[in-house]
Amino acid sequence: MISYQNLPVLITGGAGFIGSNLAIRLVELGARVTIVDPVVAGCGGNPSNLAPVRNTITWIDRDISDAARFASAIREAKLIFNLAGEISHIHSMEFPERDLLINTVSQLRFLQVCAKENPGVRIVYAGTRQVYGKPDYLPMDEAHPIRPVDFNGVHKYAANMYHTMLSRSGHLDAVVLRLTNVYGPRMALQIPCQGFLSTFLRLTITGQGLQVFGDGKQLRDPLFVDDAVDAFLQAAKSKIRFREDRTYNIGGPQSLSLLEIAQTMARMGGNLPVTLREFPADRVSIDIGSYSTDSSAFRDSFGWRPRHSFEDGLATTLAYYRSNLHHYLDPNNPQPHCGLPEHLGIQHRLTYTAV
Amino acid sequence: MISYQNLPVLITGGAGFIGSNLAIRLVELGARVTIVDPVVAGCGGNPSNLAPVRNTITWIDRDISDAARFASAIREAKLIFNLAGEISHIHSMEFPERDLLINTVSQLRFLQVCAKENPGVRIVYAGTRQVYGKPDYLPMDEAHPIRPVDFNGVHKYAANMYHTMLSRSGHLDAVVLRLTNVYGPRMALQIPCQGFLSTFLRLTITGQGLQVFGDGKQLRDPLFVDDAVDAFLQAAKSKIRFREDRTYNIGGPQSLSLLEIAQTMARMGGNLPVTLREFPADRVSIDIGSYSTDSSAFRDSFGWRPRHSFEDGLATTLAYYRSNLHHYLDPNNPQPHCGLPEHLGIQHRLTYTAV
Repeated sequence: MISYQNLPVLITGGAGFIGSNLAIRLVELGARVTIVDPVVAGCGGNPSNLAPVRNTITWIDRDISDAARFASAIREAKLIFNLAGEISHIHSMEFPERDLLINTVSQLRFLQVCAKENPGVRIVYAGTRQVYGKPDYLPMDEAHPIRPVDFNGVHKYAANMYHTMLSRSGHLDAVVLRLTNVYGPRMALQIPCQGFLSTFLRLTITGQGLQVFGDGKQLRDPLFVDDAVDAFLQAAKSKIRFREDRTYNIGGPQSLSLLEIAQTMARMGGNLPVTLREFPADRVSIDIGSYSTDSSAFRDSFGWRPRHSFEDGLATTLAYYRSNLHHYLDPNNPQPHCGLPEHLGIQHRLTYTAV
Repeated sequence: MISYQNLPVLITGGAGFIGSNLAIRLVELGARVTIVDPVVAGCGGNPSNLAPVRNTITWIDRDISDAARFASAIREAKLIFNLAGEISHIHSMEFPERDLLINTVSQLRFLQVCAKENPGVRIVYAGTRQVYGKPDYLPMDEAHPIRPVDFNGVHKYAANMYHTMLSRSGHLDAVVLRLTNVYGPRMALQIPCQGFLSTFLRLTITGQGLQVFGDGKQLRDPLFVDDAVDAFLQAAKSKIRFREDRTYNIGGPQSLSLLEIAQTMARMGGNLPVTLREFPADRVSIDIGSYSTDSSAFRDSFGWRPRHSFEDGLATTLAYYRSNLHHYLDPNNPQPHCGLPEHLGIQHRLTYTAV
């Protein structure tokens, strides 16, 4: 792998969960890191995530849709890690236009500026396995049909297509990593609807019992964030020619049932109780059943593999939150709340107007 | 096929090329037809298209993104034919946000209102083979990877996913027809960038020679609009259970090279000259090479097949334009012009604002 020493890199969503872990690692590797993150309510960004590197990085406090206003940072970047977005499937079903704006419209604007200011720049985009929907077969490879079960999946896939289409035409040099469920330090704990791992972590770290929907037999393959960061770094610097569709699945080292995941967390959190409960109605239609990843295309092309077992990653994660909990849970208001303007009664709407 | 007599149907894009042919046929079948079409500049809508039925139909002069304002028409419709959109690949590359607004944002708003006001309503959506991009194999079936080569393909596919996703969850009962190149009466002639068939027709009907890009050997399978209308009618009324992805390719009866198509038109237009010329730079990246459709899934499920050979369809088409040319070409300004606000120097931008 080529050196990151002194390399100017741009990270969108750099105050978010994976983005901040990536920023910290890149600073350790000697890169000159600029992050773009306006910390949009509900999206999981948190300035505390960047505490270790706050004085080392440059922070552009703008939405990626305002890319024209930070064109020089885009022009100077040798690599772009594109992690800005909203990951919540639930939010997307409540507020589809918000999800469309954040995950598709903003990406369109950002990528147009990238193509103009830095044609052919290498971009690594954080995609999601959610675009596949309910699996036809497991483990799931990249040839699986695209059948998202929620607006988030539709909008993330539109952005995925922007990256691949603009790369096929030579405007960009993008690669898309379709991530499984990632967990680890700096994950938002207090925002509901960020996935079961976030909820389980909040309940574990606060000493509450865990509830598992359904029979708990659905499989997931959680990936520790350090391993996800490895995947981004290897995809970014590789000189290997990408496959034509430039899209790789990135999964975890083990297939575990939701019940096993809950039981492991409950045990490591201090022998907390685990109970099964019925699936809530609003989750049934967007549940995808079991999932496990076939990461062999990425592994074979890039030599990557996850290095952390779930127990190892979880131990590191719990230790992090024990020391930093006040940055992730408001002690005066420990209930989950996403702070979405729509939840505060403010309605938003996309309009197309002459400017 | 069940009777259309007195059936309330809604057609979005009903003043457009295929939409107007569908409206006229549905009036003939006794349906109560409401169309929605604000005749957006550049999209091919033309009030003259509806001349034969103008006093029989109800015309809602609104954008589908304003669906909340015609909720009662949506509520009362037993069938919805969803043909609103922009088909130009070239326009989409010039003005991606405009294409996103027309083909994706508007569809999102429209479908949300449909799901709310008329849950489970049967919708037939006009998709496009453009979502596939350059074929891996021919004839192309529905299992082919989705690899659009332009923004239009990305945005049409996002709308395709809205339809299938909302149907899988029971909110709608949609079917998507992925159309090949359709031609026939009521096609816009004067708007450039509406595809080669429109351009060839304009040149033929005005007695000019035809130019074919490249060597002219690329295959297409043009479909006469009456056959496309048949496909919409059969998909709309069928009680056959749709396949899970609810998407069917709809192609023409013959594979013809661009040169053959041009030569046939030139001969039927009065022995006009046909010349080959180099591919213009802005078309190279969005050209998909040869294309032919495997329509067997739709044919086998619905008993549909195209009834018109290219020569038959073309004869009908040329006869139509000979009698109605003044509605399709401005004699005072016979040059192609799409009337896009952006081409008139007016910039538009999507914004997400509190309302």
